[in-house]
Amino acid sequence: MKIGIIGTGAVGKTIASKLLELNHGVMMGTRNVSDKITSTAKDIYGNPPFNEWLKTNNKIKLGSFAEAAAFGDLIINATNGRNSVTALINAGAKNLAGKILVDIANPLDFSSGMPPTLLAGLNNTNSLGEEIQKTFPDTMVVKTLNTMWCGLMINPNLVEKGDHINFISGNNPEAKTKVKKLLNQFGWLDENIFDIGDITGARATESLLPIWLKVMGVTKNGAFNFKLVR
Amino acid sequence: MKIGIIGTGAVGKTIASKLLELNHGVMMGTRNVSDKITSTAKDIYGNPPFNEWLKTNNKIKLGSFAEAAAFGDLIINATNGRNSVTALINAGAKNLAGKILVDIANPLDFSSGMPPTLLAGLNNTNSLGEEIQKTFPDTMVVKTLNTMWCGLMINPNLVEKGDHINFISGNNPEAKTKVKKLLNQFGWLDENIFDIGDITGARATESLLPIWLKVMGVTKNGAFNFKLVR
Repeated sequence: MKIGIIGTGAVGKTIASKLLELNHGVMMGTRNVSDKITSTAKDIYGNPPFNEWLKTNNKIKLGSFAEAAAFGDLIINATNGRNSVTALINAGAKNLAGKILVDIANPLDFSSGMPPTLLAGLNNTNSLGEEIQKTFPDTMVVKTLNTMWCGLMINPNLVEKGDHINFISGNNPEAKTKVKKLLNQFGWLDENIFDIGDITGARATESLLPIWLKVMGVTKNGAFNFKLVR
Repeated sequence: MKIGIIGTGAVGKTIASKLLELNHGVMMGTRNVSDKITSTAKDIYGNPPFNEWLKTNNKIKLGSFAEAAAFGDLIINATNGRNSVTALINAGAKNLAGKILVDIANPLDFSSGMPPTLLAGLNNTNSLGEEIQKTFPDTMVVKTLNTMWCGLMINPNLVEKGDHINFISGNNPEAKTKVKKLLNQFGWLDENIFDIGDITGARATESLLPIWLKVMGVTKNGAFNFKLVR
């Protein structure tokens, strides 16, 4: 499948590498391609600059937000949640129309320091997933994977032999079925992909970030998740 | 120990029965004692009226909010989250001062129908637990047990042999240690009581309600919880 990834941060790179390994065609979209290509700055975690990473993943294409959206039969939003709607507007509604958009971002607000809260207007009675769906009514938004560290998103077997939960929500059942197949390729078993209904489920999964951050603050290791027991 | 329970709903009754079984002294506090005693109305779940329940739990005392707070060496807030602060103000700051208050309530807002959201002003950048701590600075507020159905609170072994998570937060480490001992009596092993730090942890655990409600909406059975896997 041809997949466009909006965003070139740690999450986007992790997903892109995995998709390449799975033989999907991948184009990553960035705000300014020439800046991204020429920048020699390490990322915020001290990792090598993007262009070095791209050399070792040289089958991955790099384009503008719009080019990546136009390229993909399926689009993944891996931007910072604060910038997601703007980035997707730049990607262009017509490049997203009729397609599945997998939203794995979280609307975190770091403006008051750590730990972040959720952005005003995008919590409790709204969510980033819903906001994107409202902004792009001709796109099928599916929210998933946003409740865990990116290393687990594409390799659930890292903990508990993969036996932990990944929520999925969205208004279009067929779109969710297709996204589940992609999740299966990442290693997620159907029994651990828990469908919580329409896109208002994004409120619930984005609301998991505060407890995720608290647990991470104690364990100092992102390789954890929750398992539903009953 | 002498324990005062603020609130006489399903959660309060469940906790009260268990505390009685554990040979604690229990007084439940209600807004209007004579109304509560004489009412023949079933509760919202169709259970028998409170006075019938009290006959089968006749070692449990019933008093006003203030009497229950004065009675207890430790206080449990089991009121509806919308009414918690008002109920505790009625209980009286001097009756709560110097004591541990275990807050197991959630600030749910049912005013726009189901599923409820969290109450405005008590989510994301604040929480019910924090609001209670701010209102009663001489009381040691400990937030715990609010992320599950009341049947599991007092009997974690109902699922997965009790191997699932109960978060605890609060500003006073000694108060948390004492509450953990009470949780041990309910069946919670230390390894499953996860301390997420000061009372701002209440933001994180109260934020679990939206996903809890979504899962409950699918499973139609409150006997579930989450287990931390890593």
